[in-house]
Formats: sequence, structure tokens, C-alpha cells
Amino acid sequence: MNIYRYEENPLITPADVKPYHEGFEVIGAFNAGVAEYNGEVLLLLRIAERPVSSDPRIVKAPVYNTRTRELDILEFRTDDERYDFSDPRVIRNVHQSASFEYLTSLSYIRLARSKDGHRFTIEDQPLVYPAQCLETFGIEDPRVTQIEDTYYIYFSAVSPVGIGESMVSTKDFVTFTHHGMIFGPDNKDVLIFPEKIGGKYYALHRPTTKSTGNPEMWIAESDNLVYWGNHKHLAGLREGMWDSGRIGGGAVPIRTEKGWLELYHGATKEHRYCMGALLLDPNDPSKVIARSSRPIMEPEADYEKNGFFGDVVFSCGALVHGDVVKMYYGVADTSMACAELSLSEILDSLAYE
Amino acid sequence: MNIYRYEENPLITPADVKPYHEGFEVIGAFNAGVAEYNGEVLLLLRIAERPVSSDPRIVKAPVYNTRTRELDILEFRTDDERYDFSDPRVIRNVHQSASFEYLTSLSYIRLARSKDGHRFTIEDQPLVYPAQCLETFGIEDPRVTQIEDTYYIYFSAVSPVGIGESMVSTKDFVTFTHHGMIFGPDNKDVLIFPEKIGGKYYALHRPTTKSTGNPEMWIAESDNLVYWGNHKHLAGLREGMWDSGRIGGGAVPIRTEKGWLELYHGATKEHRYCMGALLLDPNDPSKVIARSSRPIMEPEADYEKNGFFGDVVFSCGALVHGDVVKMYYGVADTSMACAELSLSEILDSLAYE
Repeated sequence: MNIYRYEENPLITPADVKPYHEGFEVIGAFNAGVAEYNGEVLLLLRIAERPVSSDPRIVKAPVYNTRTRELDILEFRTDDERYDFSDPRVIRNVHQSASFEYLTSLSYIRLARSKDGHRFTIEDQPLVYPAQCLETFGIEDPRVTQIEDTYYIYFSAVSPVGIGESMVSTKDFVTFTHHGMIFGPDNKDVLIFPEKIGGKYYALHRPTTKSTGNPEMWIAESDNLVYWGNHKHLAGLREGMWDSGRIGGGAVPIRTEKGWLELYHGATKEHRYCMGALLLDPNDPSKVIARSSRPIMEPEADYEKNGFFGDVVFSCGALVHGDVVKMYYGVADTSMACAELSLSEILDSLAYE
Repeated sequence: MNIYRYEENPLITPADVKPYHEGFEVIGAFNAGVAEYNGEVLLLLRIAERPVSSDPRIVKAPVYNTRTRELDILEFRTDDERYDFSDPRVIRNVHQSASFEYLTSLSYIRLARSKDGHRFTIEDQPLVYPAQCLETFGIEDPRVTQIEDTYYIYFSAVSPVGIGESMVSTKDFVTFTHHGMIFGPDNKDVLIFPEKIGGKYYALHRPTTKSTGNPEMWIAESDNLVYWGNHKHLAGLREGMWDSGRIGGGAVPIRTEKGWLELYHGATKEHRYCMGALLLDPNDPSKVIARSSRPIMEPEADYEKNGFFGDVVFSCGALVHGDVVKMYYGVADTSMACAELSLSEILDSLAYE
């Protein structure tokens, strides 16, 4: 696979972003949804901000307060034996090590604009910010689907009751309509197809199950983009391969002559995140036609291997112009990068089932 | 609370049910959905059948094969150190003790009919049986909502990829339409309201989350009963109380003058299952008006305390005639019973928020 990583990579880093909250530091500007609007490339950045702690014995957790509409800052002592602080992203109860109790940062969505897709200007204010009780721990990993003149922006909504997927829509990136939570918990990595297929809307989604099963890709259908049903399992983990630990949708599905191409992320059990591709039936996207045996992209560059959470390439959106796929992607849970791949090369690389 | 338990309790036990599968034993006839049809009371029983094992060192797991349309029987040796057999209901991987790999029984739905609601005749054939790849481990805990002349029957669909909620509908209990999975995994304890409220259908549901959060009650809305969205958290666990471990909807919500009354189950962390009630706003059922401080019913009778999984009263449906609530309920994950309670007494017992 020929991959052209932009010379400017990483395109946006936390150092480029002024914190929105006083006393906070930006630790991530990554996993951006992508849109084209008014001749510009828009990156809907996931910005993660963390309260600065001057005392290394104190870990802080920001929580959006729906009543005051401000952040409460909870403080935990690292010697508090009830909690496990080993993962810098979360605070766990030592008796429930599979789940988390708090996050150490709060994420929201902020806009970056570019004429050339390489050099971005980052806005000072949030574009979409936590506003509801299902978003008090933040909103993460946005994706954007344009249908006619409306942009549907959906993201993981995180709160003490779980992680689901919520959606807002806009025509102008100024005024927004909130459509509530479209996929209940636990769910993330939703990708809405950009047009109806056989009279129905479709979306990929990624439940995280507790009873049995693995973090795998599902597909659902809708007639209004807000209510979803007819859930089907789409693609699973593959033992011993690059996507043996977890998988989830990445970019908005791309219509090609051979079918719907989905650029998805797969991780090993050791949390090394690569990008691969699925080809879905053009008339029934619940059927997988072909899939990447090997990743189309792996973490290789220094900025992909090192960061807040290293060895991660994680795309939430791509632009397709002719045969060129401009894949924007988060690196190391820290920054944004872009790489160009050939659409036909990706299609030719797939293993047909 | 005055509770009149039927003298005939338990009304139906596994001994009353002839196994459908050759070489199997019925270990449960319980957690039935309830309907009234043609002047009869129908119980849509969850029947759990287990392959008979003559060798105590062998544990068997039945799995529906969608290709052959028959059951495959997998066999496991109890001295196989890769597996944990301590819970007789499931086979776990020792390295993933929070989830299961196989079930030791397969559940499906079978009909019992009664003129008086006390003495039931059980049909020989399944009413609803696993038929799809999302149902290969069985279908469990049906509920029935009648809307006009259509009966919507929905149940937990269990398979290796998780537990979701699927739905069929019928007008005559002879021919059925399958509507697919209406709530993706992990989800169970769905209860569809029997009429539109403010122009929308509503359903309670119970996600089981892994990332964070607890097994608690949510509510969603729909315009066609098949696609669901606008998920909201409805009611949570209460530390130190009878519903501190898990909660979920029980009977189809009952319209009363004070609001929608939901009879729900709550369990302690030690898995003692009781029934309680929630009162929801008549015009916006996502708002809780009142809730039981103490259970309206607890496992007290011998048949409720002892069985395959003891100390369980678990209702999936009730009939309301005037002030009388005829609550049918599963006991000890084994049999069916019924008790009559007073609607006004339940309403008067609630603690208003």
C-alpha cells in the first residue's frame, strides 16, 4: 500500500490549542470528524482538557454540572486505596477493574478550518460542548455525515451511566439541533451512511457487551436517522491478526463501484490500533464482501507511535477526490495527521470472502 | 401490602412440561409474558431445556445451528481447566469470569392457555423458537404488548455476539412476523407501552454496560415500534436497598389516573430478586414521579425461595381488572406463579420524589 503522509504531520497538536477552561491543559486534539463546507475542509476536533495538578499526589476529575453549567473538579489522592490510577485516562474502583468511575480529562468538539487541507486555523470556542446529563464526562470521537445540506454530527456521550452515541445536526455550523442519544449504552464508533440504500438509512455501530461477545461491528437501519433498529452483527474479531482485540467503524462509508468501502480501526489485545477496510454489498450493507487481511495503515511514524496513548492510528473521517482518499486520523490519542491513499489500491488489496 | 398468592401456586412447573427435544429435560417453565386473547389468559412461557447428561463429569451446551435448523450439543469435561462451571446456568472462560461462553440450557417460548387464569393447558410445540444467528443460544423472558389487535412479543435474543432484544408480532398466535433485533446488545427487560403518548411509542429497556454504569432502567421512543431512539436514563440502583444490585422492567406499563405504573424487578448484589413499582409521568414517561421504598413483593413462599436459582420473584406480565392486579411471575428461575395485589394499595405505597 502506497501511503503519502503529509510533510506537515502532525497537522494539529495539543500545543496548537488554547485551553477553553481556565486552569486546564490541552492533552489531546485528535480523532476529528471531517466535513467539507463552503470550500473549506473542517476538522471537528476532539479536544481533551485536563485540570492542571501541581501536586503529583492529587489526580483530578472534571465533571460537567448540568445545573450550574460549569465543571466540577473532583480530587483524588493517589494513595487512596479504593482507587486504581494506573491508566492515566481513567480512575477505576479497585474492585471493578473492568470499568471506570471517572475520567481524568473532559473532551468536547472544536472546529479547525483549512483552505488547503494541510494548514488549519483552530477556533477558540467549542463547537459542541456537553449540555445534558448523558454527557457529563464529555463527548468524544465525533463523525460527520453530510446528507444534502445538513451535517449530522454524532459522538460518544460519556456519563456515569455509560457510553452511548448522541447526535446533533446543523446546516451552517452555527446553530445546532440536538437529537438526543441515538444508540444507547454501551455503544460508540457509529457511522451513518451518506445516503439511503433501498429506501432506508443505515449506520454501523460498535456495542461493547458485558454478558458475552466482543467489541465488534454491527449495523442498524432507520427511516429518520434518530430511531434505529434491525440490529445485525456485521464483522467480528480475527484471532491472531491485527484486529484480534477490538474493531470499530472509522470513516463515513464511501460509495464505490464495487460496494460500500468502510475504513475501520482494529486493535490487538495489546491495544495497537491500525486502520483496515471492509467492503459491503452495495445494495445490502449488512453483507460483507471483502476485508483487509493486513492493515492499510499501521502506526509507524514517530508521532503515531509516541504520545498520550501510543501506537494508535484512528481515523474518524476521510475525504475522497477521484482516486485519492485523504484520510485524516488521530495519532497516539494526542494529535491529528493526514495521509493520502489510493482508493483503487485499497479495493485491490482486499481479500474477498 | 396485601398479597393473595394463588392456592394452586406454583401454577406451572417443569414437571408439567413435556420436553420438545429428545434427550432433553425441562429445567424451567418460568418468566412468562402474559396476554388475553379470545377470552383466555395466555402465558408465553420461557421453557428452558437441558441435554440430559448421564456422566457427571460432562457438561453439555446446546446451540441452535442456523444451517441445519437443529441443535448442536457441545460437550465439556468438568476437569477442563480452561472453563469455570461453578454457575450451573453457564460455562465461563476462567480468564473472563464476568462473561459467559456458553449456556447449559436453551430457552424458547411455549404457550399455556387458561379460561380461569388458574389452571393452564400447555401446548406441545414451541410458539416462538430460535430462528436466526442472533438467537443461537436461545430466546428468553418474553413480554407481550397488545396494541389494537396485534400482539407484539419481544424477548432476549442470546448468541455468542451478545444479548439483545428481538421482536415478533402476531394477530392470532399462529402466524408471526419477525421484526429483527429492536435493541442491540447488551440489552434485556424491554417493555413497550401499550399506546402512544404524545404521538410517540415508548419502551423501557435495560442496557448492561461494561465501560461504566450499572444494570439500570432506560427509556426510548419510536414511531413504528421497530426503530428506537432518544434513549434516556430512567431509574438507577439504590445503595443499601432491595434494588441495589440490578433493576429492570417487569410487566407492561399500566395506565392509571396518577400516571404509568411499572412493576419492575430489583435485586440485591446477592441476587435476591423482588418486585417493586415505579410511577411515571402520564404525559412524559421519562419522568419518575414515585417509587417503591420497599418491595411490593418479596420471595417468601417455599416455591419462591427454592429452585434452580432461588430467592427470585420475577414478573414479565400482569393483567389488571378494576383494582385487581393479577401479577404472573416466575419463581426461583423454575416455575410460574400468580398473585393478586390491589392497584390502589400499590399506588398508595409509593414514595413520591
